[in-house]
Amino acid sequence: MNAKFIVIEGLEGAGKTTARDCIVGQLREQGITDIVFTREPGGTPLAEKLRDLIKQGLEGEKITDKAELLMLYAARVQLVETVIKPALARGAWVVGDRHDLSSQAYQGGGRGIDQQLMQTLRDAVLGEFRPHLTLYLDVTPEIGLQRARARGELDRIEQESLNFFTRTRQRYQELAASDASIKTIDASQPLEQVTTSLKKVLQAWLVEQK
Amino acid sequence: MNAKFIVIEGLEGAGKTTARDCIVGQLREQGITDIVFTREPGGTPLAEKLRDLIKQGLEGEKITDKAELLMLYAARVQLVETVIKPALARGAWVVGDRHDLSSQAYQGGGRGIDQQLMQTLRDAVLGEFRPHLTLYLDVTPEIGLQRARARGELDRIEQESLNFFTRTRQRYQELAASDASIKTIDASQPLEQVTTSLKKVLQAWLVEQK
Repeated sequence: MNAKFIVIEGLEGAGKTTARDCIVGQLREQGITDIVFTREPGGTPLAEKLRDLIKQGLEGEKITDKAELLMLYAARVQLVETVIKPALARGAWVVGDRHDLSSQAYQGGGRGIDQQLMQTLRDAVLGEFRPHLTLYLDVTPEIGLQRARARGELDRIEQESLNFFTRTRQRYQELAASDASIKTIDASQPLEQVTTSLKKVLQAWLVEQK
Repeated sequence: MNAKFIVIEGLEGAGKTTARDCIVGQLREQGITDIVFTREPGGTPLAEKLRDLIKQGLEGEKITDKAELLMLYAARVQLVETVIKPALARGAWVVGDRHDLSSQAYQGGGRGIDQQLMQTLRDAVLGEFRPHLTLYLDVTPEIGLQRARARGELDRIEQESLNFFTRTRQRYQELAASDASIKTIDASQPLEQVTTSLKKVLQAWLVEQK
């Protein structure tokens, strides 16, 4: 089986970290041990600096929606070109905590950035590069935020309104419905059941790939 | 006369700082005293952070051309939306040390980034927004770099090869030839003569605007 790029997506508190551990366990069971982890925005020294700027913001300066979007794509292209593509090329699997679908959902859906701009930017920056599989953990904003709050302080993005997350989730759901490489998992269930569902979906997909 | 956005452009060592002081003096003579200075990349706290990342780079990590370009546009859109447009709207003139033409010349010409991507990005991010006047200080890379070196240490961009600056200058010249809002000043002359030429061009333009 060729190396694959698997992405975990979903709102804050959807259970992405638990999902990552679960995926890694399953890949190892298949004898896949060369696995690179990425997170977005971030994953390279430059991209992590951009992540800090995006997440924390700057005292007294509101980051405009377009600047935020461009910083996200700067971080993404840096990660794709210097980490993800080289890893896949040498045969390592890549498991990503978020990728382009997050921008489509948060910036496109949540912030309402023009669809034409979103598409133009993605095509211009990423070309045809796409994850082989995206596992979308679908959770209601209420449950997701409750879990995120239980973890501690909320960052700039996590402090957005419930409406923002509702629009974001809606865009996630729309995109998942129209793309066969995105598998939806009900993540409003208790986390143990989420893990069970995730394992089933991933196992079925791995069998298909053989 | 409505407030205008005047941009100074040119290679390193073209004499942009001297030009700025000269422009400001001339505007003041016309009774224009509410003048906002900008520099790019930079000019807002966020944009200055991006400037630092672009200029200094990060130990051991090469910034990809596309990431650099996207960071430049992130800084630019933040500056345009939060500083330049509001200044013009309240009647202040804006004098900019570099703007979009720098990206066209350095990233488009120097780095050879695809023209289609350059244009797509500019249209998507800036729309129809353009400077009213661009004063392009045309200098040979040899003279420019000699002047820049005399000032002290060179940053990551200034350390590029002579070929890079030759391609950059060529793109500057091409774009200046095809756009009436860009006025070319021979900046390979001694700086005093550059100032005299600049004053003539700016004076003629100011008279035209009345």
